[in-house]
Amino acid sequence: MFASGDSTTGATLQAPCTRALRLDSQCKDPLPYHFMSQYRLAQAVDAFDIIHFHTDYLHFPLFAQHWNKTLTTLHGRLDLPDLPPMLHEFAMMPLVSISNAQRAPMPWANWYGTVHHGVPSNLYAGGCGDGGYLAFIGRICPEKRPDWAIEIARRAGMPLTIAAKVDKADRTYYKTRIKPLLKDPLVEFIGEIGDGDKGAFLGDAAALLFPIDWPEPFGLVLIEAMANGTPVIAFGRGAVAEIVEDGVTGLIVDSVDEAVAAVPRARILDRATIRRRFEERFSVERMARDYLALYDAVLRCGTVDAVMSAAATAQMAANAA
Amino acid sequence: MFASGDSTTGATLQAPCTRALRLDSQCKDPLPYHFMSQYRLAQAVDAFDIIHFHTDYLHFPLFAQHWNKTLTTLHGRLDLPDLPPMLHEFAMMPLVSISNAQRAPMPWANWYGTVHHGVPSNLYAGGCGDGGYLAFIGRICPEKRPDWAIEIARRAGMPLTIAAKVDKADRTYYKTRIKPLLKDPLVEFIGEIGDGDKGAFLGDAAALLFPIDWPEPFGLVLIEAMANGTPVIAFGRGAVAEIVEDGVTGLIVDSVDEAVAAVPRARILDRATIRRRFEERFSVERMARDYLALYDAVLRCGTVDAVMSAAATAQMAANAA
Repeated sequence: MFASGDSTTGATLQAPCTRALRLDSQCKDPLPYHFMSQYRLAQAVDAFDIIHFHTDYLHFPLFAQHWNKTLTTLHGRLDLPDLPPMLHEFAMMPLVSISNAQRAPMPWANWYGTVHHGVPSNLYAGGCGDGGYLAFIGRICPEKRPDWAIEIARRAGMPLTIAAKVDKADRTYYKTRIKPLLKDPLVEFIGEIGDGDKGAFLGDAAALLFPIDWPEPFGLVLIEAMANGTPVIAFGRGAVAEIVEDGVTGLIVDSVDEAVAAVPRARILDRATIRRRFEERFSVERMARDYLALYDAVLRCGTVDAVMSAAATAQMAANAA
Repeated sequence: MFASGDSTTGATLQAPCTRALRLDSQCKDPLPYHFMSQYRLAQAVDAFDIIHFHTDYLHFPLFAQHWNKTLTTLHGRLDLPDLPPMLHEFAMMPLVSISNAQRAPMPWANWYGTVHHGVPSNLYAGGCGDGGYLAFIGRICPEKRPDWAIEIARRAGMPLTIAAKVDKADRTYYKTRIKPLLKDPLVEFIGEIGDGDKGAFLGDAAALLFPIDWPEPFGLVLIEAMANGTPVIAFGRGAVAEIVEDGVTGLIVDSVDEAVAAVPRARILDRATIRRRFEERFSVERMARDYLALYDAVLRCGTVDAVMSAAATAQMAANAA
């Protein structure tokens, strides 16, 4: 495992830095640590059958020659103008999407498969949903539309509890657009919560509101809600339709009006079924199995490629003789 | 030449993008283009005797194995917290500083030499300095202290002309701290000027003010002023003492008071001598000669290294036999 020194793993940990870079206020530039990690990995490349990267495209130049023992999961949004030339240049790198929807801007890229995220089944138990509130969890930012969540709750006449962090980049948005709305007695803002508190928060919620206004490539909180048996009311953007089974694990809507109407309908969805569908579709075991199959696909493809090019070389030699 | 498509060069140009990335508003992330360029270069590495990089540390992972045919000029400031671990990890990479002062935060790095910048001798002629104004040129930012330049000019009772751009990051600083000072009738702000206008602007100036408040690693404008025969009044930070010959090509000062007192003294420095010292010390020919010597040093060092390691291998084989 090549990761920051505070990672929890049973594998041998090779760390270029002591702490997660995003939590390290001393770190101004994360790139050197990625490069150090890559370089150490490249020197030990023969020790590995397959290398699974979660570092965007940062390793492409150094590992292009080893493409046939790599798999790269792209975790972010792909509608960025500088990505297509990069993925054309490094067209040999085997890629994984975290949803089919994520691929929309680049359907032509070298996709080996889609692997939906998983959550450990024992991390959450099914909750009862009897807290009498709707939940919103995530960052306070324009794309996640906490303002719409507040409007939906007010019009549905239900309390809304917001568990969310406010990143530096979103301070102005929070102050000018969201903070004034928090005065409503139906709305409670409890700040960022950790994994340990998520179970109670989501498990007690009547439903999760997910009124996104951007093509979110996955939406981990959707499956965290399901793990707690909590139905979701989600806007049908990005990967939502792949994750939420409309009428079973939640309700997919397209407007604030539809979301308001969905609140009483979501509350009567069967929480045990939601939890069961989570176990069937979004466990870490299912995720691991999916990835193992793609590791095989890369290794097979690499072998076929090697055989083909050896045959071509032999044919050229025969023709020359 | 591996550079953007709008580069002017007599060499074969291999460009990953059509325009300089910093001028391309469509470009949100410059890294993909650097990676594409590096990758193409790595595939053609055998075609080159020596490769001179001006891309910070971005090429270190891919070219570490070819260190003995590379030279890297570090152009930026080096007092950044994430650089030392990187330069320790890639300790084999031969480095060049643009001043000795630049090295201060990392004297232990793998420096092959310092090469001061050069300017083509025919780009500027010596000016007469009879415009009756002091000049300030550069970015409007706190480190360059345009406010001090204004104070120096006011107290010296001479007009000041400021030729400077305002980057997005410095807009607030410009509006709140500098714009109010521009009302002074002695001060004229003419915005950013191109290379074509620099000769007249600097050549007509009585002196250049360079009241920096940071360890500037070089200060190209200092030698541009000298190329026009214009004396500089510079604060003695960073590389200033390496570039300015105190009492010959300018005056080195340590405070606004000293700078005010230096104005009449700078005006009597001999402009023909300043131009001559520029030609002797900061021509592109001198810069190119310096670099050629360092290319030789890298190649020699690489050869010695190869011979030593071949000898060590032979010795080990002999010991084993």
